Amino acid sequence: MTSTLPLRAGTADACCGSVADGAVDAERAARIARVFKALGDPTRVRLLSLIAAGENGEACICDLTGPVGLSQPTVSHHMRLLVDAGLATREQRGRWAYYRVVDGSLEAAAQSLLPR
Amino acid sequence: MTSTLPLRAGTADACCGSVADGAVDAERAARIARVFKALGDPTRVRLLSLIAAGENGEACICDLTGPVGLSQPTVSHHMRLLVDAGLATREQRGRWAYYRVVDGSLEAAAQSLLPR
Repeated sequence: MTSTLPLRAGTADACCGSVADGAVDAERAARIARVFKALGDPTRVRLLSLIAAGENGEACICDLTGPVGLSQPTVSHHMRLLVDAGLATREQRGRWAYYRVVDGSLEAAAQSLLPR
Repeated sequence: MTSTLPLRAGTADACCGSVADGAVDAERAARIARVFKALGDPTRVRLLSLIAAGENGEACICDLTGPVGLSQPTVSHHMRLLVDAGLATREQRGRWAYYRVVDGSLEAAAQSLLPR
């Protein structure tokens, strides 16, 4: 539906005010900060990056623990924070959880920093 | 000098690997996360936004306390985290500290999320 505007697809909250424009009120700042807080951890940055690079744009938690060198409960915890921030989705398939990066979410986060 | 490429001006650490490309090793993830951790707080998002919108691209700390409703020591603390993350500079002029957004720093942070 908005396929001609890939940077804005699914980025409803990218519409109003970027940091560079100085147009950030308290509510908008809270939404922006929530996403960046989730990105403000090296493990979560790597997890998101691994998922983005995964086959078909997804990754099984069983394939994430090895590269980051952490236990499954710890990876699950980090992934929950990314899901809660709107950056990833989680789908249970049998024994394993599969994660995807939410379409447009990284673009929306980037846009919140750039001049309009 | 690189005025035809504003998004890349001063973005030396935007050169290697974005989250969207899945090319983020542990060291790169740590650098990306450091910046986003600084941005992961609503007050700091608002402070950076106020500075970006300031006259001549700068703001006196004396003009920042009011809009965010916090004391000068608290604002100074938040600003120190932004300076340490490479997002702002601080210049003392007489009694007051003046802050600027580091050229290209917001663009570099945005680029670290976007496909190359």
